[in-house]
Amino acid sequence: MKVIEIDVLEEVELNNPVFIEALPGVGHVGKLVADHMIDELNAVKFAEIYSPTFPPQVLVGEEGIIENMINELYYIKDLGEDNLDIILIGGNTQALSPDGQYLVCNEILDFLEQFNISRIFTLGGLPTGQPVENPKVFGAATCEGNVELLKEIDVEIRSNDGGIVGASGLFLGLGMRRGIEGSCLMGETPGYFIDAESAEGVLLKLSSLLNFEINTEKLDERAEQTKLMLAKAQQMEQDLINRTNAGNTDDLRYIG
Amino acid sequence: MKVIEIDVLEEVELNNPVFIEALPGVGHVGKLVADHMIDELNAVKFAEIYSPTFPPQVLVGEEGIIENMINELYYIKDLGEDNLDIILIGGNTQALSPDGQYLVCNEILDFLEQFNISRIFTLGGLPTGQPVENPKVFGAATCEGNVELLKEIDVEIRSNDGGIVGASGLFLGLGMRRGIEGSCLMGETPGYFIDAESAEGVLLKLSSLLNFEINTEKLDERAEQTKLMLAKAQQMEQDLINRTNAGNTDDLRYIG
Amino acid sequence: MKVIEIDVLEEVELNNPVFIEALPGVGHVGKLVADHMIDELNAVKFAEIYSPTFPPQVLVGEEGIIENMINELYYIKDLGEDNLDIILIGGNTQALSPDGQYLVCNEILDFLEQFNISRIFTLGGLPTGQPVENPKVFGAATCEGNVELLKEIDVEIRSNDGGIVGASGLFLGLGMRRGIEGSCLMGETPGYFIDAESAEGVLLKLSSLLNFEINTEKLDERAEQTKLMLAKAQQMEQDLINRTNAGNTDDLRYIG
Amino acid sequence: MKVIEIDVLEEVELNNPVFIEALPGVGHVGKLVADHMIDELNAVKFAEIYSPTFPPQVLVGEEGIIENMINELYYIKDLGEDNLDIILIGGNTQALSPDGQYLVCNEILDFLEQFNISRIFTLGGLPTGQPVENPKVFGAATCEGNVELLKEIDVEIRSNDGGIVGASGLFLGLGMRRGIEGSCLMGETPGYFIDAESAEGVLLKLSSLLNFEINTEKLDERAEQTKLMLAKAQQMEQDLINRTNAGNTDDLRYIG
Repeated sequence: MKVIEIDVLEEVELNNPVFIEALPGVGHVGKLVADHMIDELNAVKFAEIYSPTFPPQVLVGEEGIIENMINELYYIKDLGEDNLDIILIGGNTQALSPDGQYLVCNEILDFLEQFNISRIFTLGGLPTGQPVENPKVFGAATCEGNVELLKEIDVEIRSNDGGIVGASGLFLGLGMRRGIEGSCLMGETPGYFIDAESAEGVLLKLSSLLNFEINTEKLDERAEQTKLMLAKAQQMEQDLINRTNAGNTDDLRYIG
Repeated sequence: MKVIEIDVLEEVELNNPVFIEALPGVGHVGKLVADHMIDELNAVKFAEIYSPTFPPQVLVGEEGIIENMINELYYIKDLGEDNLDIILIGGNTQALSPDGQYLVCNEILDFLEQFNISRIFTLGGLPTGQPVENPKVFGAATCEGNVELLKEIDVEIRSNDGGIVGASGLFLGLGMRRGIEGSCLMGETPGYFIDAESAEGVLLKLSSLLNFEINTEKLDERAEQTKLMLAKAQQMEQDLINRTNAGNTDDLRYIG
Repeated sequence: MKVIEIDVLEEVELNNPVFIEALPGVGHVGKLVADHMIDELNAVKFAEIYSPTFPPQVLVGEEGIIENMINELYYIKDLGEDNLDIILIGGNTQALSPDGQYLVCNEILDFLEQFNISRIFTLGGLPTGQPVENPKVFGAATCEGNVELLKEIDVEIRSNDGGIVGASGLFLGLGMRRGIEGSCLMGETPGYFIDAESAEGVLLKLSSLLNFEINTEKLDERAEQTKLMLAKAQQMEQDLINRTNAGNTDDLRYIG
Repeated sequence: MKVIEIDVLEEVELNNPVFIEALPGVGHVGKLVADHMIDELNAVKFAEIYSPTFPPQVLVGEEGIIENMINELYYIKDLGEDNLDIILIGGNTQALSPDGQYLVCNEILDFLEQFNISRIFTLGGLPTGQPVENPKVFGAATCEGNVELLKEIDVEIRSNDGGIVGASGLFLGLGMRRGIEGSCLMGETPGYFIDAESAEGVLLKLSSLLNFEINTEKLDERAEQTKLMLAKAQQMEQDLINRTNAGNTDDLRYIG
């Protein structure tokens, strides 16, 4: 079994696409943005990515249908005034182990080489540790030029300011080593609920940077749905963890 | 050392067998079902599976005889009114690490390719977090058709409802990717004791689905035995963990 | 870097030797027995084993001299009335990760194939969770015949009695799969101090089984020394862990 | 992706250089020494080392510029009265996993073979668990001769004294196995703040051993800067950890 297995659904030609990472993380900000962009901008899924570094489970989706842990690649052609081609990566998970994170991100960048990625944007939440009013969007970038672009649209620039953990960090870091510029947009969020307001902030900054328009009306609704869905799922899993810890299946700690 | 090593005990020919997973997990529901089916239906062991991803230990069985951590493949021929051939996987453990879970399940499916598996059923417990009266059997499946079959026999369908962790999830997910349909039957269980009632529920639903008869009288007795045996074993292991943590063998945390 | 690297210090010919495992574990029972046998029976070190699965550190030994984490193979020729050849494995550590445990034990058995090991004995402590008067020696074995031999010398036989974790378990389990018989001797011990009395019990049972004589007078003294040495070392490491956790080196949790 | 990837920035010829390890660890003693030596002695960076065993993140540096996790090799030619050539390894991280530590250190030593390293010095902090007045410098070495050299300059020799964990230990241990002598200098430090005083102690002992002069005036200032920078970063990360644990992204525990 390879680090990642990619099922290509459609061979597609793209013009120096912008690569956008929006995988699940803090406050589900990235995932909310991804789901919303996919729906509103009619993104087309062209590849599915599986990995033994993902959590060892499946999800029970709507109506009892089982779903694999997955990352998905979508494309959007001719977006906005600059007629940009976009590749967006979304999904329901990230690699579980630290080295798995590196290996998966690196192999995805290997796969994307054929498209001549021009820039990378990674999206996520920045946890504040307390309730936030009027959440800001924070940013960082791989070079001064991109930092300037972020400043121009009033993204708050982080400085000497901790790490960007997971795919949002590694796509930028590994991209840098391949000579691809990138920026990160992080919506301020308490982090412990599905944060539509934070996601909206990130999405609007991204649309400014890439010069496209997007209706954010349904983001609240989407967040509400996600919240209900996840709340139930998380409750089940928490119960499972509690039971397993209290119970007598000591060497099967994480197995349901 | 390979991810799994398979000792084939008997070369067997089977007719598009149904593959049933019943490895130990929450409430030992899967394991109870497996042990009971093996005894009552005269299942024949035809392969033993070892793996360095299993817990790094042996078990002390009856009368001081040492047993390896193991997964075992059994077959049953011409079961029930539909004359089904069955392959059942049981054993005393599952892989310990997350990626080990993926690798082991995937390699077992590789091995089973020769048999042309027609369907997969995975069995386990669903922890409730509190005492259960009249435990229900919950289900999920890889496609709508199989969900319908579960509904017909009054299996409670889960929806947007967390994950199925470990072998019970991965055999279905990895099976889907190979084009094999599958379903999961999960008996509601508090999760912190050996639950014969939950196992009986799962077994009866399985027998309905596969159209065979099975006497469940001795399940209670079997649960009682398992309980006594495990209670002692777990007590020993818990003591070991307590000692080791309190003791002065810091870099040998999990070693007895 | 391979799973293990073996530096052979002396090419030696042995006559179907008995393989004895006495690596550090609960109560340092195994290690005490190993150190004592090596000294009293003039065992000769013939191979050193290193592994990246060992804890990522060195030890500061006497007078500030640095020591690698290591497993060591010793031989004893013509021991006791049966003129047995012995291979003993001792050292200052075991593999840290679960799969590392399997890989290391398996590769050591691969290396030992050349000697035609006749039997395996693994030695260790069995934690009781409370102070012990007149600690018993418990045992288990890979077959009935060996269990009988243990009974004959009044070793208490375990039954349905949890796991034997680490090298003491795996050498027996992996040995079984190679057709080599084995037994485990475990001295009852509170587990949280260096237990000379428990080690003496194990050593005397082993000498009965293998029909050799050994003076155990100095075991107390040796335990006292080990205690002083380890107490200091453990204190330092505990401080380090406390500091690191309290401190600000978050991604270097285990690094001194 | 290999265990390490080395980008060589300059081909350099060195005369049996001394290899100095000063990676981040307890009290940031090693890192402070490295940063100070690089600045004061005009060290030249000649190679960058990346690894999937490093923490799966990037850092946000000054003015929002993203930095990869990295180890860096510097050289200094003709240092001090003995005209020594020096290779110094610094950076912002160490490998995260235990076996990663071994693999990274071993591959770095492989790369350094071409330079015929004559001696190794590893630098770090030794946590005391409480405030320290007049912090001592402790030492250990791979052989008696080097221990004597440490004694001559009043380094406190450790004895039977726990482990040296991480790169500071492994470069010495793996170096020993290649026949390279080495010593460790560890500055006593409470461990929970950036300790310029401890770093100064270590640096002065090193300058005595290698017979060079270095101005330590700016060490305090450097420590102050590091403190401010890290305090902020750590606060962010701690918040993230708190949020993630409290939040509902259970399978993304370490992902921001």
